[in-house]
Amino acid sequence: MKANTLLSVFTPKDTKFFPLLKETASTMVRAAILLQELFDCSDEEQKKELYKAIKVEEVKGDKVTGSILKALNATFITPFDREDINALTDSMDDVIDVIYRVSHKVQLYSPEKLPECTTILADIIHKGSLEIRDSIDGLENLKKTNIGFRRHYKEIKRLEEEADAIYEDGIMELFHKETNPTELIKLKEIIQELEKGANKINNTGKVLKTIFVKYA
Amino acid sequence: MKANTLLSVFTPKDTKFFPLLKETASTMVRAAILLQELFDCSDEEQKKELYKAIKVEEVKGDKVTGSILKALNATFITPFDREDINALTDSMDDVIDVIYRVSHKVQLYSPEKLPECTTILADIIHKGSLEIRDSIDGLENLKKTNIGFRRHYKEIKRLEEEADAIYEDGIMELFHKETNPTELIKLKEIIQELEKGANKINNTGKVLKTIFVKYA
Amino acid sequence: MKANTLLSVFTPKDTKFFPLLKETASTMVRAAILLQELFDCSDEEQKKELYKAIKVEEVKGDKVTGSILKALNATFITPFDREDINALTDSMDDVIDVIYRVSHKVQLYSPEKLPECTTILADIIHKGSLEIRDSIDGLENLKKTNIGFRRHYKEIKRLEEEADAIYEDGIMELFHKETNPTELIKLKEIIQELEKGANKINNTGKVLKTIFVKYA
Repeated sequence: MKANTLLSVFTPKDTKFFPLLKETASTMVRAAILLQELFDCSDEEQKKELYKAIKVEEVKGDKVTGSILKALNATFITPFDREDINALTDSMDDVIDVIYRVSHKVQLYSPEKLPECTTILADIIHKGSLEIRDSIDGLENLKKTNIGFRRHYKEIKRLEEEADAIYEDGIMELFHKETNPTELIKLKEIIQELEKGANKINNTGKVLKTIFVKYA
Repeated sequence: MKANTLLSVFTPKDTKFFPLLKETASTMVRAAILLQELFDCSDEEQKKELYKAIKVEEVKGDKVTGSILKALNATFITPFDREDINALTDSMDDVIDVIYRVSHKVQLYSPEKLPECTTILADIIHKGSLEIRDSIDGLENLKKTNIGFRRHYKEIKRLEEEADAIYEDGIMELFHKETNPTELIKLKEIIQELEKGANKINNTGKVLKTIFVKYA
Repeated sequence: MKANTLLSVFTPKDTKFFPLLKETASTMVRAAILLQELFDCSDEEQKKELYKAIKVEEVKGDKVTGSILKALNATFITPFDREDINALTDSMDDVIDVIYRVSHKVQLYSPEKLPECTTILADIIHKGSLEIRDSIDGLENLKKTNIGFRRHYKEIKRLEEEADAIYEDGIMELFHKETNPTELIKLKEIIQELEKGANKINNTGKVLKTIFVKYA
């Protein structure tokens, strides 16, 4: 499909999928912001509130995802291939799910002290979610000349490589320094889950890249 | 599809899928009963027998699932959408697989003492599997007026919420009280796997809800 | 499809899928050989090199897999059902991914001493990968009389049963003998990941069996 055909379908006809995709992206960004606050927070009561707020976003995410699936089933013409819309939705929902699981583990395990790598990983997830949201905003005006779009998924890939390095150092340090086995078990799972978050963001970046290559 | 058209296809024509779906559900219920017995049992020899009996059900489950897939490929007209039959089969098979994995871990790890939450979670899985089986029995006479069917998936959802609460308390207590790291590792995995079981039952409940909304 | 029709499509027309499937299989075999060397190796510097070499194979695996998917999308006639080519590709890619994850964990965790079961499991993965490669080589001349092909997937199944037994003994021994919780955590994950490798090889064997039953 050529860019102009695509655009003609996109604007102004599609009033269904872009708003829903944007809503999913916003939910993801809100969850990511709350996650970063959770890792910056030292007050137990406030941490609990942040966990609950993330849970709220996770439920919202499920609902929007459901609406997109319903809309896909009910719509004959979609702004781009239904499998791409589907993959995009699923991959963002995966990010939200992992963010929720991280916060749930922090809440359940309440480790004595969170190592520095967790704050950095939460920050990477936050940054990655912003890149995704901006890409989604750019989908409506997808053109080959749109260097911005390309920049987003390159930045997402770079963030994942950064996350990988932080994760590796974090895990190695944990095994070397943490002498309390209970804390070791708790922190290992939290760090691994955070790394999965960066991974899921990168998956979304790959879907965005596919869409760019296909339609722009 | 209207209820009467559906019924006319269901009864008496479909002699293939309902028996197979019922067989899968029975296998799942038997596995769940054995799992509960396993968590109520204190004799090591008997535990091993229960584990082996669950393994037998798991193999049976795989076979019935395979038969359903084969039947789907060989049949042009199915009592309801093939994707729904597929999802229903897969989700029940997932439940059986998790039940098997729980029993395998109990067998392999043989923890010194199983905390109370494990017995409660096994009981919830058992109850949930009965709800699923009764729903499957009700599929042949699916009507909007069938309040029973609706009651089943609501109860399944309630059971999952109960399981979540039990799981959370169980994990928190484990981390607070268990001082032996080896036991901590063993029990954490067993409790997490049990929670996954309740989760997979809830997934089946969601599929059943979809079918009810679509066809009844 | 009869064997001769299949063969007529296979030879000499298909110049696309067989080379790519063979390349995937070779990548998997190379990764498996490196993995076994890793578990036989005691020098830390050399271990790191082996890990890096496996990473290279993993990246190659991703690329070939991508090429197969692209070729599937661009080709109307395929030597056998696209879902089978897809399943075969995915399952081999899964094997490569698990091999990479095992090596990554060995690298990150650097456990003090690897128990014997890890070497045996790595050996089983190596043997299994050779069986798969030989099966893939045989796909071009698939005939009912081809006892060799059947022998491969039977051997793969036998290897998985062997791996299961080794895994079970290994885990039980680990929990009984390992008194250092940090080492216990590290080794448990490595052993579990190795077992997953044998499992993924068996999945590939199942796909190969399906293809044999369907086309030979």
